[in-house]
Amino acid sequence: MKIYFAGSIRGGREDADLYMQIIEILSNYGEVLTEHVGDPSLTSLGDDGPSDRFIHDRDVEWLKAADVLVAEVTQVSMGVGYEIGRAIEAGKPVLCLFRPDAGKNLSAMIAGCPDVKLVNYNEFSAIKKVIDTFLKRF
Amino acid sequence: MKIYFAGSIRGGREDADLYMQIIEILSNYGEVLTEHVGDPSLTSLGDDGPSDRFIHDRDVEWLKAADVLVAEVTQVSMGVGYEIGRAIEAGKPVLCLFRPDAGKNLSAMIAGCPDVKLVNYNEFSAIKKVIDTFLKRF
Repeated sequence: MKIYFAGSIRGGREDADLYMQIIEILSNYGEVLTEHVGDPSLTSLGDDGPSDRFIHDRDVEWLKAADVLVAEVTQVSMGVGYEIGRAIEAGKPVLCLFRPDAGKNLSAMIAGCPDVKLVNYNEFSAIKKVIDTFLKRF
Repeated sequence: MKIYFAGSIRGGREDADLYMQIIEILSNYGEVLTEHVGDPSLTSLGDDGPSDRFIHDRDVEWLKAADVLVAEVTQVSMGVGYEIGRAIEAGKPVLCLFRPDAGKNLSAMIAGCPDVKLVNYNEFSAIKKVIDTFLKRF
C-alpha cells in the first residue's frame, strides 16, 4: 500500500515531531511516500526541494500514486488543504486527525466533508488504533 | 459568469475588509457566489451555516457551478487550500492573489502549481488590473 502523509510545512512546524511519530506508525502498513514531512530539520521555510514547481509536481505525482491520504490537520496549512481537496476530488480515501484541545478552529471544508474520515483525538496513544481501523479496510 | 471567491474564515479574519473590496471588483464581471466571505460580521468561528456539513456541501455546490475561482491566499487557510485543490483537480481556471509583504510563507502547492495563475501584489490598487486581465479571457 502507498500512503501519502500530509502535514504542515510552511503553515508552521510546531507538530513536526508528531508527524514523525505518525509516519512511523504508517510505515507498518505500507510505503509512506512523504517521509520528509516528519523531518525535524525541515523548517517552515519549506526548502524540501530546489523550487516550488519541483516540490509541487513531485508531491502531486506521489498523491496520484497513493492509495490513501492520511493528514494531521491541527496546524492550519494551505498545502494540506490543497492535498486533501485534490485527493477528495480524485475519489481517494482520506483520514484526517485533529486535536480539539490545541485551540484551533478546523475548517468546515474538512470537518463537514462527508468523504473525509475525521477523527478527533487528544492523546497520541489513540492514533495507533484509529490508523489500524482505517487502513485495514484497504 | 459565475465566480467563486475564496478567502480565509476559520484560518483568521484579518483580511475580511480586503475580501469585501475584491468581491466588489469581481461583481463587475459576474455573479460572486460566495459574497459572505467578505461579510465583516463573520468571525473566525466560521458560523456561516447551521452545520459544517451544510457549509461544506453548499460551498462545494457553488464551486462546481463556478466558471472560475479567485482566491486571496495571504492568510493561511485550510479551507482555501481545499477549494483550490478541488478546483485544480476539476480543471477550473484559478487566480491566486498573494501579498509578499505580509510576512507569510506561501505554500509550494500553490506557488508551484503550474495550473494556478499566481499574482504577487502589495498595493490594493494593483488588483483591479490583475482581475481584469484574468477574467477577460473567459
